[in-house]
Amino acid sequence: VTAPTITLTTDFGEDSPYVAAMKGVMLGINPDVRLLDLSHQIPAQDLRHAAFFLRHAIPYFPPGVVHLVVVDPGVGSARPLLYVRAAGHQLVVPDNGCWTTLAGPDVRDLTVIRLTEPSYWRHPVSSTFHGRDILAPVAAHLSRGLDARQLGPAVDQWVRLAVAPPVLQPGLFRGEVVFVDHFGNLITNIPAEALAPYPSPRLAVEVGGRRLALPWVKTYTDVEAGTFVGLTSSSGTLEVAAAQGHAARRLGAEIGTPVKVEVEGAPPV
Amino acid sequence: VTAPTITLTTDFGEDSPYVAAMKGVMLGINPDVRLLDLSHQIPAQDLRHAAFFLRHAIPYFPPGVVHLVVVDPGVGSARPLLYVRAAGHQLVVPDNGCWTTLAGPDVRDLTVIRLTEPSYWRHPVSSTFHGRDILAPVAAHLSRGLDARQLGPAVDQWVRLAVAPPVLQPGLFRGEVVFVDHFGNLITNIPAEALAPYPSPRLAVEVGGRRLALPWVKTYTDVEAGTFVGLTSSSGTLEVAAAQGHAARRLGAEIGTPVKVEVEGAPPV
Amino acid sequence: VTAPTITLTTDFGEDSPYVAAMKGVMLGINPDVRLLDLSHQIPAQDLRHAAFFLRHAIPYFPPGVVHLVVVDPGVGSARPLLYVRAAGHQLVVPDNGCWTTLAGPDVRDLTVIRLTEPSYWRHPVSSTFHGRDILAPVAAHLSRGLDARQLGPAVDQWVRLAVAPPVLQPGLFRGEVVFVDHFGNLITNIPAEALAPYPSPRLAVEVGGRRLALPWVKTYTDVEAGTFVGLTSSSGTLEVAAAQGHAARRLGAEIGTPVKVEVEGAPPV
Repeated sequence: VTAPTITLTTDFGEDSPYVAAMKGVMLGINPDVRLLDLSHQIPAQDLRHAAFFLRHAIPYFPPGVVHLVVVDPGVGSARPLLYVRAAGHQLVVPDNGCWTTLAGPDVRDLTVIRLTEPSYWRHPVSSTFHGRDILAPVAAHLSRGLDARQLGPAVDQWVRLAVAPPVLQPGLFRGEVVFVDHFGNLITNIPAEALAPYPSPRLAVEVGGRRLALPWVKTYTDVEAGTFVGLTSSSGTLEVAAAQGHAARRLGAEIGTPVKVEVEGAPPV
Repeated sequence: VTAPTITLTTDFGEDSPYVAAMKGVMLGINPDVRLLDLSHQIPAQDLRHAAFFLRHAIPYFPPGVVHLVVVDPGVGSARPLLYVRAAGHQLVVPDNGCWTTLAGPDVRDLTVIRLTEPSYWRHPVSSTFHGRDILAPVAAHLSRGLDARQLGPAVDQWVRLAVAPPVLQPGLFRGEVVFVDHFGNLITNIPAEALAPYPSPRLAVEVGGRRLALPWVKTYTDVEAGTFVGLTSSSGTLEVAAAQGHAARRLGAEIGTPVKVEVEGAPPV
Repeated sequence: VTAPTITLTTDFGEDSPYVAAMKGVMLGINPDVRLLDLSHQIPAQDLRHAAFFLRHAIPYFPPGVVHLVVVDPGVGSARPLLYVRAAGHQLVVPDNGCWTTLAGPDVRDLTVIRLTEPSYWRHPVSSTFHGRDILAPVAAHLSRGLDARQLGPAVDQWVRLAVAPPVLQPGLFRGEVVFVDHFGNLITNIPAEALAPYPSPRLAVEVGGRRLALPWVKTYTDVEAGTFVGLTSSSGTLEVAAAQGHAARRLGAEIGTPVKVEVEGAPPV
């Protein structure tokens, strides 16, 4: 991109001055920087929410952008802070695994550097606000063209979020809710293409203690308001939605809720 | 304006990655674009709320800005997507009527184009996220100077939101709540100038099943905290407010609640 | 800074079109301006919240930025609107005291001008929305380089927020909660350095009707989840937190709640 650009993703909310302080620090280091809010509404310290958010936001950005991520339940502890270059995207982020689903299987695409060089930090460093005192200044220096190798040593160990892959058998899938979006739609980790062999699938879905017979639809408007449906999420996985309603609230489901899907109707072709 | 500029108005909230994905897509197409958030807190799929919001936000912008609007209960259905040029302002928006109150009576000021040219879209197009795959890329191409006529054919049919005009008789007005603002003030569709003939009006207002005697004041601080008052909203219509309080909650009123106003006191001059 | 820059801090929320209208007005006056949201989630008309927010956000910005602040319970009344230059930072703000904690003791660092020159305003001026019609246009003109002395006369009287200083005796401190952050942590006005004489302090804290024995820790992760702790806030004062929990909700504390601290353990060195 042309102008140096930093995006911000945090769980800080906007009622507290924390985001504003980070913006001020970055503008002080790089007066030309373009700051883009992605979200300050990540639920507090929710790493799985942050992981899904980043996985479905960062890949849409062009290379050259620096992504500042501060969801940091371990702030002030010995957990490291990292510079990550994964699949062409650059992040500064606590070492808590929230970024790891961004990395593809090709390890040549991945650089991870531990932030140890205090000359790029703000001093004194508060033990409760590394976002302001370490991550934001480092992001600002990177946006000015600093070579990331100046920030500290490359490492090959970091925290990974454990994500159980879905179990896919012909006509029977087991997975879980990996995200509840703003509209209450349940995004699962079951790839929609698992349904490809079934010409007109009907789904029996167990989620949140209930068993639902779901028509498989192309979009929310194909059925009456309130009807539960299955469809392909914008991330390409099975989504369980209540048309014009809030499926998560009605089903008592949240991130991590198990989902079991039986495909009824036509046998596999 | 100097820098190419796109504003964003959605009902996506900021906990989901949807807004962030659209920003990434636009930055990828136009690295120089300036992105301005107007709101991501439009209540989910609330077209009347969106209509009021746009009517009282867009006109303040200078020409040349592209306004991206994604409040889209019909996503994935056959409802068209539109480029609109109304009164000098440019929008990309689903064809659901939320923009139509922006257009003045002068039809020469209005251009509406149906987005049918897939070469300006992102592929594959998700059936649940046209904001990311059609509207955002189109906005970004427009911000680079693309001639809107490349986007598809001009049309002369589109959805209009039905808005009943207020009924204004001497001393007796009937209308409705058209917006409840962040402070709980009730904005009605009754023009404040209807009160101009009355030198010191007192209002008897029926709203939400209650009848209130309202002093007509210039500002919230003219009365004690908690007192209901009538005043001219920042949109130039009758506003019913509870000084330093939340009128909507106290009266159980929402968008669409009927409002009946009798003007007491001095007869018309 | 290089590009002309205006930050925005309001209690308007983002569901209403008020912030958007101000952005449009400013862009119309200065097409080159860079607009940075600091917060639109200040609790409605809460001047003490706004004061803490500004005190802990504005000082991080470089000089040259214009800070637009609209938390304005007195809108439309005779309360003046001000241009303030304090410690090198420029604000346009209602005269309600929310900015005064930014000013240091050195009066040579402080310029306060009453906004009286209507040629820099938007007309007609709504009596309920001075943010759009006076403060935003003035901020935009300032961002274009207007000399602030053109805006009106310098004054030496303004509203100050009364803030009782903490009472600090050896081993016994009395103060109050000055901020509840997004995570529910209680930020007090008791300077953490008051604890410096105590080599390994334990605190007995009275807050919200409860007496708590608090370990003094360096960071939230030093104790089990849910444990109440005392630590140095990112503002340098005593913070009372519940590790990975919401202290304010558990203690029923809010801004203004008195806090009494007894330091147990080792006597002063």
